[in-house]
Amino acid sequence: MKLKESGIVVGVSNRHLHLSQKDLEILFGKDHELKNIKDLKQPGQYAAEEVVTLVGPKGKMERVRVLGPVRKETQVEISKTDAFKLGVNPPVRDSGDLDGTPGIKIVGPKGEVELEKGLILAKRHIHMHTKDAEFYGVKDKDIVYVMCNTDGRKTIYGDVLIRVSEKYALEFHVDTDEANGAFLKTGDEIKIVEEL
Amino acid sequence: MKLKESGIVVGVSNRHLHLSQKDLEILFGKDHELKNIKDLKQPGQYAAEEVVTLVGPKGKMERVRVLGPVRKETQVEISKTDAFKLGVNPPVRDSGDLDGTPGIKIVGPKGEVELEKGLILAKRHIHMHTKDAEFYGVKDKDIVYVMCNTDGRKTIYGDVLIRVSEKYALEFHVDTDEANGAFLKTGDEIKIVEEL
Repeated sequence: MKLKESGIVVGVSNRHLHLSQKDLEILFGKDHELKNIKDLKQPGQYAAEEVVTLVGPKGKMERVRVLGPVRKETQVEISKTDAFKLGVNPPVRDSGDLDGTPGIKIVGPKGEVELEKGLILAKRHIHMHTKDAEFYGVKDKDIVYVMCNTDGRKTIYGDVLIRVSEKYALEFHVDTDEANGAFLKTGDEIKIVEEL
Repeated sequence: MKLKESGIVVGVSNRHLHLSQKDLEILFGKDHELKNIKDLKQPGQYAAEEVVTLVGPKGKMERVRVLGPVRKETQVEISKTDAFKLGVNPPVRDSGDLDGTPGIKIVGPKGEVELEKGLILAKRHIHMHTKDAEFYGVKDKDIVYVMCNTDGRKTIYGDVLIRVSEKYALEFHVDTDEANGAFLKTGDEIKIVEEL
């Protein structure tokens, strides 16, 4: 196995959602604007003050965080552990690839949305600036393996999507199941596997 | 990468505990005997009817299953997700290797045990009969990598302990975080990595 130089840090994504302007107004009221309470590492992205409740056939989850800014389509990202609790079965998908995904009921302080599609388990991915992609010798949409050399739970994650943009900061995104299964935490460093 | 022949199935371990006779009697009453409600794949092991509540500094978990038969020492096995909820920080350990591990409060119908040690995250492991070990070319206490070739979440788990005994059936044990992070479920097949 051959590993590339490091410098790629982990960002663990807890369950969260992105809202369309339309759904935002149904849930929080007409002309509502999201309030940024914390900038995320990806430029322009932020955790909003707003939280909602997700309601599935088997259970509900309260205080699920909205991330801003608003997007073209509402997208809800949960873990497989969350999916078991809610009683839903979303597929693993890249962000924005929502055709054929299940929906879920979202409850806000001013209204409810019965989402028709948009519930996913996020595909593991690495955000990269164009210059990072050059440095690591990869390109947008490449699929790589990543070595997580953690104490007692060494793990090599495959199916990791490379996403390159002038707007991205270098960060490996996994959900809470993936983080816990490999003992990763936000800020840990991982390495891309150059040759397996 | 070179994979060995398969035939090794996954057994996902939900949170559970093994009790000493002494702790069993404190929690369930004098001379109490565990009631077998379901044999496990490992010969002689079973899920008992008895459940307890685990109480940590930040939360509690109800209906945690006792596995039988009784053991020399009480051992509680949870996931990292469970650990966050309870507010505890157990290490990854092999079964029975409990020195220096934290304890936890266990509440049963007849009494409570303030465990001094025994709370662990189980180390990934493969149970094997002696004949299986010969077939796969490994021996007791070897550490291997395992390929989980699951849809959208391909994962290679390292730090997998080989445990060989005349009494064991062939089975790869992971906890719920590890199962969800790699999209594994009980009965799935995995392969030992012969060469990485």
